Amino acid sequence: MRIGILGGGQLARMMVAAGIELGLDFIVLDPASDACAGQLAPLIIGDWASASEQPELLACDRITCDFENVPAAVLESLAAAVTVRPGPMAFEAAQDRLVEKSLLRQLSIPVPDFAPVSSRPELLAAIERIGLPAVLKTRRLGYDGKGQAVLRSQEDLEPAWQALGEHELILEAWVPYRHECALTAVRCAGGEIRFYPLSWTVHDQGILRLARAPAPVDPALVDEARSHVRLLMDHLDYVGCLTLELFVGEFGLLANEFAPRVHNSAHWTIEGSLTSQFENHLRAVADLPLGDTGMRGQTLMFNWIGAMPAVDKLLSVPGLRWHDYGKQARSGRKVGHATLVARDQDELAERLAQIRPLLDDQTASLLSGEITPLG
Amino acid sequence: MRIGILGGGQLARMMVAAGIELGLDFIVLDPASDACAGQLAPLIIGDWASASEQPELLACDRITCDFENVPAAVLESLAAAVTVRPGPMAFEAAQDRLVEKSLLRQLSIPVPDFAPVSSRPELLAAIERIGLPAVLKTRRLGYDGKGQAVLRSQEDLEPAWQALGEHELILEAWVPYRHECALTAVRCAGGEIRFYPLSWTVHDQGILRLARAPAPVDPALVDEARSHVRLLMDHLDYVGCLTLELFVGEFGLLANEFAPRVHNSAHWTIEGSLTSQFENHLRAVADLPLGDTGMRGQTLMFNWIGAMPAVDKLLSVPGLRWHDYGKQARSGRKVGHATLVARDQDELAERLAQIRPLLDDQTASLLSGEITPLG
Repeated sequence: MRIGILGGGQLARMMVAAGIELGLDFIVLDPASDACAGQLAPLIIGDWASASEQPELLACDRITCDFENVPAAVLESLAAAVTVRPGPMAFEAAQDRLVEKSLLRQLSIPVPDFAPVSSRPELLAAIERIGLPAVLKTRRLGYDGKGQAVLRSQEDLEPAWQALGEHELILEAWVPYRHECALTAVRCAGGEIRFYPLSWTVHDQGILRLARAPAPVDPALVDEARSHVRLLMDHLDYVGCLTLELFVGEFGLLANEFAPRVHNSAHWTIEGSLTSQFENHLRAVADLPLGDTGMRGQTLMFNWIGAMPAVDKLLSVPGLRWHDYGKQARSGRKVGHATLVARDQDELAERLAQIRPLLDDQTASLLSGEITPLG
Repeated sequence: MRIGILGGGQLARMMVAAGIELGLDFIVLDPASDACAGQLAPLIIGDWASASEQPELLACDRITCDFENVPAAVLESLAAAVTVRPGPMAFEAAQDRLVEKSLLRQLSIPVPDFAPVSSRPELLAAIERIGLPAVLKTRRLGYDGKGQAVLRSQEDLEPAWQALGEHELILEAWVPYRHECALTAVRCAGGEIRFYPLSWTVHDQGILRLARAPAPVDPALVDEARSHVRLLMDHLDYVGCLTLELFVGEFGLLANEFAPRVHNSAHWTIEGSLTSQFENHLRAVADLPLGDTGMRGQTLMFNWIGAMPAVDKLLSVPGLRWHDYGKQARSGRKVGHATLVARDQDELAERLAQIRPLLDDQTASLLSGEITPLG
């Protein structure tokens, strides 16, 4: 069976690495000639609009995406010829924050208050209703903190409008969260859903930096998050992995956004779970039985941003698993990650103590007592 | 850093899969245009003798092998230009059973009695001394049971001589072993050695079919095997992974042969160890710190011989990890493997009970009470 992947970044690369073990073949489409998945699978260089005219993609048994902003229309067009999983509907919803939040609310999944903004008067009216602080975001094409402005006082309005006003926007209530977390699940075409444990996530300047799983939280919270994800997946008749990002605080759980693909917050599943998110996504896409999502210990994932750190000392830390995406260094770019694995919380704490002095200051500072097992 | 690999089979393929995560680049040489490592790394199609004339190999930072019968002279020639790890000396010893057994004996590592045979009179003299049963083997190019004949009575001599007599031979005492086992270790250029747990191995018609690790044996036995491997690696100033195959019986431990490369009996290290043999081999070859060889539970590996079994039902077994090498089906060919992983022996027994009804009769029959935890 051959799978076509739209987008050739590290998510595609990790899907290919997982899928070849299952006997799957791949072909990847990406606009960039140096897309890093191209090191492991044949790469077609082309823009998204060209997808439905690529004979090699049309000859695939399945199409899936490593990029959530592949235009839904492209997926619709492909879906006429090839089974596209997850389907275009999930992308339509995930690509527009207003549609996304409206869908979540429609499904009775609690979200921060929000309002559409397409003019200065609408912005003022939205602030009147939602209050400050609030977050002004582009409805489309935002990722890793791009296309967002936090409005703390009236003085922030004009600069934010200058920066973002040319786009269709959404204003969202600022949420006084204690943690961010993410729940990944996989659903097969028959409707069976398997959940991974909840991850705690730590972002810096909008970019995911750390993920810890399983998050040491009240099981009732996990049940609630699972119930939200189940509602969403069933509604979308979803096939593959999906991640719902959530805020946790005194208010309970609020959904932030979902990604219709494998997700950075679940990279720890490569070592931490019996079946990684990449493999389970492909199992669902290819109609193979879903794999066990049970844990193999405690994990803490570090994202490497901009450039890979010097490998030598870090590779000496027992239980640190290394993932270099083979990408050129560039500011703000996700170029790799590492996952610290341990049998239990005590061993994780011990290993974290070994790795901490080897980390750059920024990463070390993000290891607050709340996410780490060091308390 | 770029690593050239001589041989593009599944061992090279699994090395590439492990090494790209460390940021290593690869190029592979193989005589076969469909060598399965070529699906993950650039492949040069050429015979071994051409290796030292391939500019892309000469431009590599290191050369290593996935095949123990790359002529030692080819490695010598390459070593004049590129660091070859492990070095030619290990291949010279491993490629000739007489040299190999003599080296082991020289290092005081106990081996079954043996004698060189290059004529009928020598064969008769060797049998006179060693007795029957015995095993007549070609000194070179035997693998997976090829080039061997068991001599149980005088009647077996003539057919064996007819089949093998044109080669240089060795007669080895037949060993009444209770188990076969294998010990894999990795040694870096600085001399540090890390050992994996001992594997129990089950062969059928000379081909490895099952491996279980860690083998539930007396720790003194493991210490003895480690001591043998240490002597051998230090003597060869070895860099990379090496596996020593041993017989276990009332006589204690006897060394059978060693492989100067990653080895089928340690494929379980992909899931069962914190650092797989493939990654540790490359870490040693590339002068990166050796990785932790600690276990992550109990494992049982199944080799798929000839053709891959139907994937659907087997993939439903929790904890079964699948490895399809992407090779064409062919009788007697190793086309893939699967590793059953579990937290402990009880869970392994439980999972084995789930998988047993799904196995072909031949594989199921090899799951004797001795290797499995079912007793």
